[in-house]
Amino acid sequence: MPDSVVGSAHIAGRVRNKALKRKLCSAEEAAALIAPGASVGMSGFTGSGYPKEVPGELARRIGEAHERGQDFTVSVWTGASTAPELDGLLASADGIELRMPYQSDPVSRAKINAGAIDYLDVHLSHVAQMVWEGFFGKLDFALVEVAGVTEDGELIPSSSVGNNKTWLDLADRVILEVNGWQPEGLEGMHDVYYGTALPPHRRPIEIVAPADRIGAPYLRCDPEKIVAIVPTYGPDRNTPFKAPDVISNRIAGHVLDFLGQEVKRGRLPRGLLPLQSGVGNVTNAVLASLNDGPFRPLTAYTEVIQDGMLDLIKTGTLDVASATALSLSDSAVAAFYARLGDYRDRIVLRSQEISNHPEVVRRLGCLAMNGMIEADIYGNVNSTHIMGSKIQNGIGGSGDFARNAYVSIFVSPSVAKGGSISSIVPMASHVDHTEHDVHVLITEQGIADLRGLVPRQRAQRIISQCAHPDYRDALQDYFDRALATAPGKHTPHLLDEALSWHARYLAHGAMQPHRAPES
Amino acid sequence: MPDSVVGSAHIAGRVRNKALKRKLCSAEEAAALIAPGASVGMSGFTGSGYPKEVPGELARRIGEAHERGQDFTVSVWTGASTAPELDGLLASADGIELRMPYQSDPVSRAKINAGAIDYLDVHLSHVAQMVWEGFFGKLDFALVEVAGVTEDGELIPSSSVGNNKTWLDLADRVILEVNGWQPEGLEGMHDVYYGTALPPHRRPIEIVAPADRIGAPYLRCDPEKIVAIVPTYGPDRNTPFKAPDVISNRIAGHVLDFLGQEVKRGRLPRGLLPLQSGVGNVTNAVLASLNDGPFRPLTAYTEVIQDGMLDLIKTGTLDVASATALSLSDSAVAAFYARLGDYRDRIVLRSQEISNHPEVVRRLGCLAMNGMIEADIYGNVNSTHIMGSKIQNGIGGSGDFARNAYVSIFVSPSVAKGGSISSIVPMASHVDHTEHDVHVLITEQGIADLRGLVPRQRAQRIISQCAHPDYRDALQDYFDRALATAPGKHTPHLLDEALSWHARYLAHGAMQPHRAPES
Repeated sequence: MPDSVVGSAHIAGRVRNKALKRKLCSAEEAAALIAPGASVGMSGFTGSGYPKEVPGELARRIGEAHERGQDFTVSVWTGASTAPELDGLLASADGIELRMPYQSDPVSRAKINAGAIDYLDVHLSHVAQMVWEGFFGKLDFALVEVAGVTEDGELIPSSSVGNNKTWLDLADRVILEVNGWQPEGLEGMHDVYYGTALPPHRRPIEIVAPADRIGAPYLRCDPEKIVAIVPTYGPDRNTPFKAPDVISNRIAGHVLDFLGQEVKRGRLPRGLLPLQSGVGNVTNAVLASLNDGPFRPLTAYTEVIQDGMLDLIKTGTLDVASATALSLSDSAVAAFYARLGDYRDRIVLRSQEISNHPEVVRRLGCLAMNGMIEADIYGNVNSTHIMGSKIQNGIGGSGDFARNAYVSIFVSPSVAKGGSISSIVPMASHVDHTEHDVHVLITEQGIADLRGLVPRQRAQRIISQCAHPDYRDALQDYFDRALATAPGKHTPHLLDEALSWHARYLAHGAMQPHRAPES
Repeated sequence: MPDSVVGSAHIAGRVRNKALKRKLCSAEEAAALIAPGASVGMSGFTGSGYPKEVPGELARRIGEAHERGQDFTVSVWTGASTAPELDGLLASADGIELRMPYQSDPVSRAKINAGAIDYLDVHLSHVAQMVWEGFFGKLDFALVEVAGVTEDGELIPSSSVGNNKTWLDLADRVILEVNGWQPEGLEGMHDVYYGTALPPHRRPIEIVAPADRIGAPYLRCDPEKIVAIVPTYGPDRNTPFKAPDVISNRIAGHVLDFLGQEVKRGRLPRGLLPLQSGVGNVTNAVLASLNDGPFRPLTAYTEVIQDGMLDLIKTGTLDVASATALSLSDSAVAAFYARLGDYRDRIVLRSQEISNHPEVVRRLGCLAMNGMIEADIYGNVNSTHIMGSKIQNGIGGSGDFARNAYVSIFVSPSVAKGGSISSIVPMASHVDHTEHDVHVLITEQGIADLRGLVPRQRAQRIISQCAHPDYRDALQDYFDRALATAPGKHTPHLLDEALSWHARYLAHGAMQPHRAPES
């Protein structure tokens, strides 16, 4: 990339509003405005559209303060996960007091599980409302990446919208990063709805199809509140795309079989219903397999546009996708950014309160497909906690979609850690999606369609269809004994044993009840 | 009641449509139409508006068949709970194969927990959609109580609407009970929305205030499908109103304090937001106490109108209430039915898919207040299961409201069974409302406002504010040891011990860890 392109003078040219041009400054100067104890609403959703430089400068200042023996932490609110340059650096500097509503950074995760960072794990559609309600207190700063600023001072969002509208509306002061890496051609792809309100002033959200636009292509911000604009040049996190492995492909095959059966029975139209897909390799494999499937034209109303979804658009299988963020690999983003014009009418990026809004998800009848950590034999799903105590990432938008979906599917390999962990357990060690919200479980072993089944029937189906053969007998044994001796046969459990698989894993590194010593 | 009033000839006069008059018959004749294996969608919600005679006749036929050694069961789908004349008689006759989506009958409960009745416990707002989706199979019969039939053949609903629209739309054949006990003056109080559809044909539900009417005052039914109309005369279940006890009054006091604080902090308007209140003595006590509170004018957008809510309307504290059912005591119903005209503009009875619709609950910003069986120290709530295995009633509408509420409050006495059960436990033995959906816990001990708190902070607040003093030290001890030794400090648990309180209760009849023998 030639200097003339990445140079800050060139990037500064993206600030087309004259008054705001005067706010241009360095990341160091901007970070210096943020005082200890501040709450900072940052942009960023699944590794895209997060501020690239000010968080690092802030982390450096925090580190220096700590070296001087001074306290310095901030509260970090975002859309969802960000990247090492944000969560990683701030967590490494012990600079985060409170983190919400979602994160997936390994350094942050370790500190959260060590009790050093307070972490609020919140339904992503609820965040904006809860902040507006006021019980998280005042928002001191918004720190938001944009692709540019128009002549009128409107902000062109970058590769995610997340909670940016809310942060800009509510923060006392605003710091913008104008990222020259983000193409100016993103202009016009976003739909920022300005109709949300607190009750009793709320009106219907008039989206009846994924492509519907109900807002503006720009974010608004009171120019008086903008205290710094920092030119940056840096790519999004752009997680490399992993080609689907055998297990993911088997799961994808089962998902396609299931959808095909539903179409055949007349319970889904041939073009299905708007897809929602959680982030990850398994769901990416499902998306890839849809290219070979018979379903079209597809639509998506989801959180994140991954490589797989972009491929579907390219081949014409997917008509239109609505999301709040892109989350692409390096190669996919290069191809996408090179031909943005081709996608302008087929991608809508919205605020996450709208991309995940229960009202819209329910109305559109999304087909929700989310990953999980474990499910129990009665269909309760744990999406967040390892062995009950340690948080992995967070619930994210899975609850927004699973509760309101037309069909709610959870997918996972049947075992983890080389077989020492079963994803199907007697009782989930933590519950994020209750038996009431889990319609279908799919592992590489098979499909358990739980709709219309009572708990005892669900157990039988999950054990026989989804559990790994290495664990099937032990699960069946648990269920049989529970059914014989539990005080209630609606959801029979043996409370002394229900969590023993997890306890055994913690004690011995494997859930297997009778593992022969390796010889 | 003079014979001339209760006589079937007089009641038959309520069938004003000439063609339908010819379908009049006895309950015995109507019940004879229902064959073994049939699925029957019945009216009824919290003991009101259920069919009074045909279920009993059906139970009698089933009993006779069983005596002859013949199999005879049916599937019973309703709005919610009914009464001994329906659930009680059919369960006693071993006549129920599958029951959904909610029940609270003691005979049924015992048979469900014995594994003799299959029971599907479903979010009440999801039922209609799931039946329309088609994976419960065909609905053979609708058996619906009405207050009358108009000249045009439209049906005047009685004291609940529930899922009646869906049953009438989808059933192959329809049996009506015209109940002379239900006043004809109910005409005009209902609002039956005919705009629901399957995706992708759904439109916004245009309710922006609890009083909004978006449908018709009548239920529609293809007259060709109506195979029997049975005149009946019988009161609803009408559970006697219990005067609030000391514990309920203390809980109510805390709820009022909490609401007062929220108003003072500017987080709620002076007239609050539309109230949703679960059924029960505690919530009735809260409603009663609102009459003395400073909040007005109140509104309600809820499932059920109880005595307490009617009192609020009478005193003018409550402006308008929207629900799907009445659930009144004998004395309240007499007073209410005597002066129906006074209430016509202030009560709207809707289908339960609308009274509980996530879209509307979220838009209006309901203040949800529901009872619970237990909560754990991290704020996960169990609404349905006793000691993990035995179902009590069901989740009902609590999930519809808690997930989408502006503030979601759960209330319970801190102990049950004379103190041998703590309602605050280390880990819930079943989870219906996850940590993500529980904002405030209130017992007679105090208020735990969990909003904005991470799990460790929640635990500390719940133990200190809500737990009974007899259990507080043991809970604190569990939490302290978990915090010290659990492999993750985000939600620290000791998996060997997490359910030991429940196991101890099952083994010894008390959760207390160190109860001294009674001497």
